[in-house]
Amino acid sequence: MKIIQDLQEMTAWSKEQTVAGKTIGFVPTMGCFHEGHLALMRQAGELAGQVVVSLFVNPTQFGPQEDLAAYPRDFARDQELAASVGVDVIFAPEPEDMYPAGCNTTVTVGKELTGQLCGASRPGHFAGVATVVSKLFNIVRPDLAVFGEKDFQQLAVIRRMTEDLNLGVEIIGHPIIREQDGLAMSSRNAYLQEAERETALSLSRALAMARTMAADGELHAESLTATLQKFILSFSGTELDYISFVDQASLQPVVEIDKDTVLALAVKINGRVRLIDNGFVAGGEK
Amino acid sequence: MKIIQDLQEMTAWSKEQTVAGKTIGFVPTMGCFHEGHLALMRQAGELAGQVVVSLFVNPTQFGPQEDLAAYPRDFARDQELAASVGVDVIFAPEPEDMYPAGCNTTVTVGKELTGQLCGASRPGHFAGVATVVSKLFNIVRPDLAVFGEKDFQQLAVIRRMTEDLNLGVEIIGHPIIREQDGLAMSSRNAYLQEAERETALSLSRALAMARTMAADGELHAESLTATLQKFILSFSGTELDYISFVDQASLQPVVEIDKDTVLALAVKINGRVRLIDNGFVAGGEK
Repeated sequence: MKIIQDLQEMTAWSKEQTVAGKTIGFVPTMGCFHEGHLALMRQAGELAGQVVVSLFVNPTQFGPQEDLAAYPRDFARDQELAASVGVDVIFAPEPEDMYPAGCNTTVTVGKELTGQLCGASRPGHFAGVATVVSKLFNIVRPDLAVFGEKDFQQLAVIRRMTEDLNLGVEIIGHPIIREQDGLAMSSRNAYLQEAERETALSLSRALAMARTMAADGELHAESLTATLQKFILSFSGTELDYISFVDQASLQPVVEIDKDTVLALAVKINGRVRLIDNGFVAGGEK
Repeated sequence: MKIIQDLQEMTAWSKEQTVAGKTIGFVPTMGCFHEGHLALMRQAGELAGQVVVSLFVNPTQFGPQEDLAAYPRDFARDQELAASVGVDVIFAPEPEDMYPAGCNTTVTVGKELTGQLCGASRPGHFAGVATVVSKLFNIVRPDLAVFGEKDFQQLAVIRRMTEDLNLGVEIIGHPIIREQDGLAMSSRNAYLQEAERETALSLSRALAMARTMAADGELHAESLTATLQKFILSFSGTELDYISFVDQASLQPVVEIDKDTVLALAVKINGRVRLIDNGFVAGGEK
């Protein structure tokens, strides 16, 4: 497995592959790999001849009050894990190479997709994501890229941007990978103290509860939301960011849920750890 | 010479060239070719194995009160002229393919480069330019692209964007091509009635006057501006948009002019035709 830090070297490597007729599958990450990341890498390997994983904790998608400095990093472990699933290249650029002095260009996706859910509580987050992903796509020049469906709004934003800017990269969403107890895997789970693990299950259990209620005929988003809110707040130390029933494509709130409705959740645990989860609730597959 | 309308076909053609080891030189245009455009195409041909010229009157860079509908178009003539200078492909996409329904992503370069000069009187113009050029680069995938220095601010914005988004395209500026009487070539010159031609010369003559004054030791931007303003307004039917002495790289106004100072001019003729011109004034070459 090759480790590349230099941007030009990365692009040169990719051009060689393309000229040699090989396809490139790409998994952009912020490192601190868990089974969810490894699943994306495996899928990229099944779909493309070469797999590139970028490892870059992107400062521009963190807000001023967010956890940029504390974000978990463990390059040695990440390197081993990536090698174990057959990754060909880890691309790990330096922040000052990604954002040199004078850098002044932003890619934004319109408010329809970015104004609500995580976009409402994390202003500037999706501009940071769209900008860095378009940069990474231009440097790595993959044929396809695999993203986790846990970051459901991010996936929608990246699909939109990739199509709108004609980036020519096929975007593939990978289902959420969960711990045995149902907790959606996330690098931020590392922040959870043991006693908070139970509280963190409020998200996946709320999803399960919504599915049961929907199966029992309760399809009104408003009453479902009220029930889920009470349920999540019954766990100690939970603070709600949002509970939203939205259309999977437009991300706009729905009144009555159906098979295209996604329940999206964001909950803060003890004021410290912000977790998200999502899933179809009424007959859809996710 | 090939004419390509389809976006996928354009990208496929470019990939073939790249795999075959050929370089692609690109000239993005809005058509209605004059000698200035042809000079860009010739330069692209000198620098690259294949020349692609895009011909697309981009709606998103026109303001609501601007001349989108009236913008001169003559595809048959453009085709002949492009062929005469050895262009390999004209890429002429349809607006509905460039901006399909739901399209919602914008590329913006920060206010430092886009808030003044043409950006002040044409809000949204440079976001339209940056977005369409990044789209065109992604579709055509050139090795280099040639732009005219007449659109001096546009060139600075595109250089910035190309570097910031890691587009991997070498940006080449081509000196302004002028009519024998000094008028900078522009597709919008076609709007000028015969009597307005003399008035239109106010721009190039003001540039010449600034150079003479600078050579005589007048280096204060403010007093030069006052003199030029009087001079330009002495032509009948002129209305000033801006007279600005700016640093060639930062586009920020200067107090004392030097070899890196560009004089940028925008003048409206009889309330109908907006013309721009620019050049170094104190020892610089342009």
